[in-house]
Amino acid sequence: MSITSPPGFEAAAVASGIKASGALDLVLLVTDDGQPVPTAATFTSNLAAAAPVRTSRDHLATVNGRASGVVVNSGNANAATGTQGRADAERMCGLVASGLGVEAEHILVCSTGLIGIPLPMRPIEAGIPMLLGARSGSTAAADAAARGILTTDSGPKEVLVESPNFVVAGMAKGAGMLAPDMATMLAFLTTDAAVEPGPLAGLLHGAVAESFNSMSVDGCTSTNDTVVLMASGRAGPADHGALADAVTGACASLANQMMADAEGASKIVHVRVSGALSDGEAHQGARKVADSLLVKCSLNGEDPYWGRVASDLGSAGIGFDMDRLSIAYGGVEVCRGGVAVEYDGPAVARHLSGSLIDIHCRLGLAEGSGVVMGVDLGYGYIEENRTTS
Amino acid sequence: MSITSPPGFEAAAVASGIKASGALDLVLLVTDDGQPVPTAATFTSNLAAAAPVRTSRDHLATVNGRASGVVVNSGNANAATGTQGRADAERMCGLVASGLGVEAEHILVCSTGLIGIPLPMRPIEAGIPMLLGARSGSTAAADAAARGILTTDSGPKEVLVESPNFVVAGMAKGAGMLAPDMATMLAFLTTDAAVEPGPLAGLLHGAVAESFNSMSVDGCTSTNDTVVLMASGRAGPADHGALADAVTGACASLANQMMADAEGASKIVHVRVSGALSDGEAHQGARKVADSLLVKCSLNGEDPYWGRVASDLGSAGIGFDMDRLSIAYGGVEVCRGGVAVEYDGPAVARHLSGSLIDIHCRLGLAEGSGVVMGVDLGYGYIEENRTTS
Repeated sequence: MSITSPPGFEAAAVASGIKASGALDLVLLVTDDGQPVPTAATFTSNLAAAAPVRTSRDHLATVNGRASGVVVNSGNANAATGTQGRADAERMCGLVASGLGVEAEHILVCSTGLIGIPLPMRPIEAGIPMLLGARSGSTAAADAAARGILTTDSGPKEVLVESPNFVVAGMAKGAGMLAPDMATMLAFLTTDAAVEPGPLAGLLHGAVAESFNSMSVDGCTSTNDTVVLMASGRAGPADHGALADAVTGACASLANQMMADAEGASKIVHVRVSGALSDGEAHQGARKVADSLLVKCSLNGEDPYWGRVASDLGSAGIGFDMDRLSIAYGGVEVCRGGVAVEYDGPAVARHLSGSLIDIHCRLGLAEGSGVVMGVDLGYGYIEENRTTS
Repeated sequence: MSITSPPGFEAAAVASGIKASGALDLVLLVTDDGQPVPTAATFTSNLAAAAPVRTSRDHLATVNGRASGVVVNSGNANAATGTQGRADAERMCGLVASGLGVEAEHILVCSTGLIGIPLPMRPIEAGIPMLLGARSGSTAAADAAARGILTTDSGPKEVLVESPNFVVAGMAKGAGMLAPDMATMLAFLTTDAAVEPGPLAGLLHGAVAESFNSMSVDGCTSTNDTVVLMASGRAGPADHGALADAVTGACASLANQMMADAEGASKIVHVRVSGALSDGEAHQGARKVADSLLVKCSLNGEDPYWGRVASDLGSAGIGFDMDRLSIAYGGVEVCRGGVAVEYDGPAVARHLSGSLIDIHCRLGLAEGSGVVMGVDLGYGYIEENRTTS
C-alpha cells in the first residue's frame, strides 16, 4: 500500500537539512504529468492558522479545486511567522510550480513542526529541485514520502482501500501527545476515480467529520491541520456512494493509526452518545467527555467512576435530563435513570483493564448519536509535554 | 475572622458519622433568632445538578430571597441519587426548619462528596438535633463549621472584610484537583449590612463572576457548586458600591485560598487577555488558555512556549487576528505582531520558575479585558485523580 498506488501520482522525499537529525524532511506528491486534477482539502479552523494553511486555502480557491500537487516540509510549522512566513510558503509553491511548468496556484503547501521560528529557506530552495528530480511512482518513493512527513511519530501511517473500479490510498502524520507543538495532523489521500471538484470536496468533508474530527487527544486545535484528497480520474467515473465510503474508510484507518501512536497514552476510549436531541449534540457531548481531564485520569486509573461522565454531560451545553441518563462501560450498565445500579464489578474491571475502552451514554431524549475517540491521561502525557526541548 | 463575626449569625458543626473517619461532617449556619433574612445564592450551571442544588434553588425562589439558614453535609454529594435524593434534601431542610419554627423553604441545603451514593439519612437525622443544640455565635463554633464543610482540603478557608459601617465574613471548601469527585466548591458569606434580596443577588452575582467564575482548575463544572450570602441587617443600610467591593474582595480571597490549596498543582497562573472585542470574549479566551492541557503542561515544565498560547487563542471562538497578537510572560514580551521577538530569556526563566505565573495576551482589537486564574498540570494531578479510592 502506498500513496502512489492509484495510477496517476508520483512522490518523492529528501533530507534537505531542516531537521538537524538528517532525517527526511521535504516531500512532494504530484500528478505524474504535472497537470492539475480535481483536488479537495480541509484545513484547521484555528484563526491562528499557519502561513501554509492560508496559502493553500487561497490557492485551491483560486484554481477552483484543481491542483497538480502538494509540497510538504516537516521540522518547522511556518506558523506565527507573519508576512515572511506567507512569502516563504508562496516561494515553496512557486519553486515546485516552475519545475512542473504550471502556475504557483496549482501547488498546495503544508508544514509541521515548531511554531514561531522562521522557515529555513536555504535548505528548502536547494531541496526542491532534488525533489522534482527524484519523483517517481515507485513504492520506494511513496514510502519515503510517508516517512518524510513525520515529526515525532513512531512510524509511518498508510492505508489502501481497493474497490472493484477504483483505489483510494493515504498517508498521514500526527496526532497530539508527542510534543504538542508537533501535534499537527496532516493527511494526504489519492484516488484514480474520476470525480469533479465539487462532489470531491463534499465527500472529503463528510469523511473528515466521521474520522479525524471525531478523535480528540488533548482538545487542542493545531495551527497547521490539513487533509488533501487528489483524484487523477484514470479509473473513470465511480459511484459516489462507493467512493465516499472508501475515502471515509481510508480516513478512519489513518485516524485510528494516529490514536494508536499517541505517545504517553495507554488506552483508547470510544465515547458513544445516543438518544441526544441531534447528531451534533451527541457529538458535542461525546467530545466533552473524551476531553475531560477527570474522565481521562480515571481511565488511566481504570476507575469506573461514572459520576464524572454524568457531570461532564450535564455541563456540555446540550439537551440533558439526569433522570433519563444511562451509562455503560463495555456494555455493562452502571447507571440507569440517573442513579447507580447494581452491576457486574469484575466484568467492568476486566473491560477497564484493556487498551480499548467503550463508554456508552444514552440520553433518552431523541435519536441523535455520535462517537468521539479519545485517550487516557497518565504520567506519560506529562512527561512528553512538559517541555518542547 | 469567622463566619459569625457579623452580628446576627450562629454556627455549629458535629461529626454525625457520614464520614467514616469520624471528622466533622454536618454543619449549620443560621440567623441567631432563626428568622429569615435577605439571602442570595448562585448555583452550578451543570444540568446534572445535585438534589441539594435543586432543592435550595426552589426554596430560595419560593421565599423570594429570604432564608433562615443553610445546612451542609460533607462526605456525600447527594448527586445522581434521583427522587430519593430530592426527598432526602427536603428532609434535611425540614428537620432544621421545625427546630427553628420556620418553614422548610426558609432553609437551604448543600452537600459535597462522592456522586451516585444514596445519602445516609440515619446519621443525618440524629445529627441535626445535635446541630440545633450546639449553635452559637462563638468563634469556636464558627471555626468548627469552617472545618466541617471540608472534604480533602488541607485546611479551612476563611475571610473577614471590615468596612467602617459593616462586616463581610466567609468560609469555603474546594476546588478541584484533590479527588475530583469532591471538586465541588461551596462558599458561605455573611454580612450585617442591611440590603434587600434583589440588590443582594445582583452584587453576589457580580462578585462570583470576578472571583470563583474566573478560576479554573480542571475545566470541569461540578454538580454541587453553591455560593450563599446572607445579610442580617444589624448594621443598618450600607453603601451599595462599598458592600459590593467588600463581597467581591471576600470572594476573591476565598477563591485564592482554593487555588493555593489545589493539590497536585505546583503553580498558579493568571491568564490576562486584553484588547478583545468584549470583556466576555476576553474571559472566554483567557479560560481557553488556562484550561489548555498543553499550556498547563508547559507551565509545569517552565517552558515559555508561547506558540501554544497563540494556538489556543486562535481556536477559542473569539475575535482574533494573529498579526495583532502580543504575548508577555511576567511582563516580558515574547511575541509581538504575531511573530517571535528577541527577549530576555533569563528574566522569563526566572519568572516561570516562580509559583505565580502571569501571562498577558494583547489581542489589539478593542477594549475587552478579562483574567482567569488557573494551575499547572503535573504528575501530582494524575496521582490525585487516577482513582477515587
